[in-house]
Amino acid sequence: MSAQPLKEVRIFSPATVANVACGFDVLGFCIDAPGDEIVARFSTTPGLRITKITGDDGRLPLDSKKNTAGVSAHALLRHLGKSDLGIEMEIHKKMPFGSGLGSSAASAVGGAFVVNRLLGDPLTRRQLLPFVVAGEAAADGAWHADNVGPCLLGGITLIRSNAELDVMDVPIPERLWAAVVHPDIVVLTKVAREIMPRHIQLETSTQQSGNLGGLLCGFFQSDYALIGRSLHDLIAEPHRQRLIPEFYRAKRAALAAGALGFSISGAGPSVFALCEGEAVARRAAAVRQRLRAGPVGFGAPERVRAARRASARTARSCDWPTRIGRPGTRR
Amino acid sequence: MSAQPLKEVRIFSPATVANVACGFDVLGFCIDAPGDEIVARFSTTPGLRITKITGDDGRLPLDSKKNTAGVSAHALLRHLGKSDLGIEMEIHKKMPFGSGLGSSAASAVGGAFVVNRLLGDPLTRRQLLPFVVAGEAAADGAWHADNVGPCLLGGITLIRSNAELDVMDVPIPERLWAAVVHPDIVVLTKVAREIMPRHIQLETSTQQSGNLGGLLCGFFQSDYALIGRSLHDLIAEPHRQRLIPEFYRAKRAALAAGALGFSISGAGPSVFALCEGEAVARRAAAVRQRLRAGPVGFGAPERVRAARRASARTARSCDWPTRIGRPGTRR
Repeated sequence: MSAQPLKEVRIFSPATVANVACGFDVLGFCIDAPGDEIVARFSTTPGLRITKITGDDGRLPLDSKKNTAGVSAHALLRHLGKSDLGIEMEIHKKMPFGSGLGSSAASAVGGAFVVNRLLGDPLTRRQLLPFVVAGEAAADGAWHADNVGPCLLGGITLIRSNAELDVMDVPIPERLWAAVVHPDIVVLTKVAREIMPRHIQLETSTQQSGNLGGLLCGFFQSDYALIGRSLHDLIAEPHRQRLIPEFYRAKRAALAAGALGFSISGAGPSVFALCEGEAVARRAAAVRQRLRAGPVGFGAPERVRAARRASARTARSCDWPTRIGRPGTRR
Repeated sequence: MSAQPLKEVRIFSPATVANVACGFDVLGFCIDAPGDEIVARFSTTPGLRITKITGDDGRLPLDSKKNTAGVSAHALLRHLGKSDLGIEMEIHKKMPFGSGLGSSAASAVGGAFVVNRLLGDPLTRRQLLPFVVAGEAAADGAWHADNVGPCLLGGITLIRSNAELDVMDVPIPERLWAAVVHPDIVVLTKVAREIMPRHIQLETSTQQSGNLGGLLCGFFQSDYALIGRSLHDLIAEPHRQRLIPEFYRAKRAALAAGALGFSISGAGPSVFALCEGEAVARRAAAVRQRLRAGPVGFGAPERVRAARRASARTARSCDWPTRIGRPGTRR
């Protein structure tokens, strides 16, 4: 008589695009793929242990107190008074580091999310927010929710306040698609942060605010033309584009292909276009082909995904990409 | 046999609250009263002439090329190729100068609006925007639409771009009321502008953006609590409150009375509270009573008006205040 295998849960935690041109540090959306997969199962050995990490080239710590996914899971378990519970965790990194696609946020969300699910969802997604933000803060030192927010809650989210973790769902226009391209270069988040000015002109702030307001109105009213008029970044893009060779050439090509707007995903080097319809998104993503001639070029991998209600969710399989536009489960 | 009197039109052009705490230079709303009344009638003498101005203590020029209402009317007539048309205009200023309630914007809107109506509305309200902005620019030297936008279009408006005059309607939650109090002091717009810094911290801009986004989400979703959490001004209020004695005392009293938020209207000295329901708005406006004890005090006039779809409209009578919450005609 063999013992019943202990319960196991496997979840998928997707990539995210933060900033979204005019929403520096306050806006983000979730894409359908790529993303991390995390497995958790009960164990007879007390405490949380990370037993396996793949896809990280040996760069992530197995020590669960130092690992982003582990930190968020520990924070949740402490909150629940279950730190002694025996849990094994496997982390399968399936998205690049330092890509500007919220890799550490995906792990931070995944760690708490998978443990919460293993325990039968004692907390709602929103209640997990402080734990996943703490997890990401352990990785990059900053307390911000513009990646973990959309990764956890799905779709497009506005962060009214990072300090208060006041996070709002924003409606997604039916035909809104995102094309996300990851150039084959590495931009260190530290460098991308240091290149930003500490102060900006009041007039710049005003113009950026007008565009953020316009973008939100566009999302609420499914006004694609307004979304297009609003997708300008006067704050981060003028500085960070320097870290991405051929940025403006790619932008011109994406806009010529019909994209509503084009900018840098998070701290870069990934870039994204928002588009009306899948066909335009595919054309916009194809700019990487043309740019192979450039000094660095926009190489593989390239993903075209819907900015739909994807979010951290129970994985259907261990493979990615997942289907385009497949909504995640929500609660 | 006496000749038929020539056609005459009388319009009402309301006061507006610009900035709205977190929407510096990009957000404004219209209140039901006070406002200016402007009369226009055909004349047998060619050209536009201002024949009468009341309520201005002799401060406004009768020369129609120098008068704000005249400038916007001339700009419209030039556009229509009707500069030689004989038109007489009377301006009845029924709101204070330098109050932060968009007095010059009301005149600028009124001038073009009354002439357009006299001519049978050849242009839509939106098509009048460049002419009324030009009228206000003649008065205060700045090209901005955060007062003329809501005065002309009604309700709450977002200015995505002042340069492009890209102006959006924002929905008004059903139970949203504004209490507007005009203290008995004069703040010169020039001084209120000079007190503002040219540069701000990037972090301040980010926080203000988050609040603007939250406020817009609150308006779209009729989420009064979110509106309340978002009504913070980190950019103008910290500087301009110095020009308004007892500002923080009034703010505390308004919030204690249940207001969702409280800040400075435009460049001040008028202040406003946004409230859920008329009863709260009336309580919030009553803070002026308590503050009469202060060194300057919040004296008369005080208005409690709904931030409803009031807008420039054909006047029903020459008296104000108009009825609370009465929507203007729209097209």
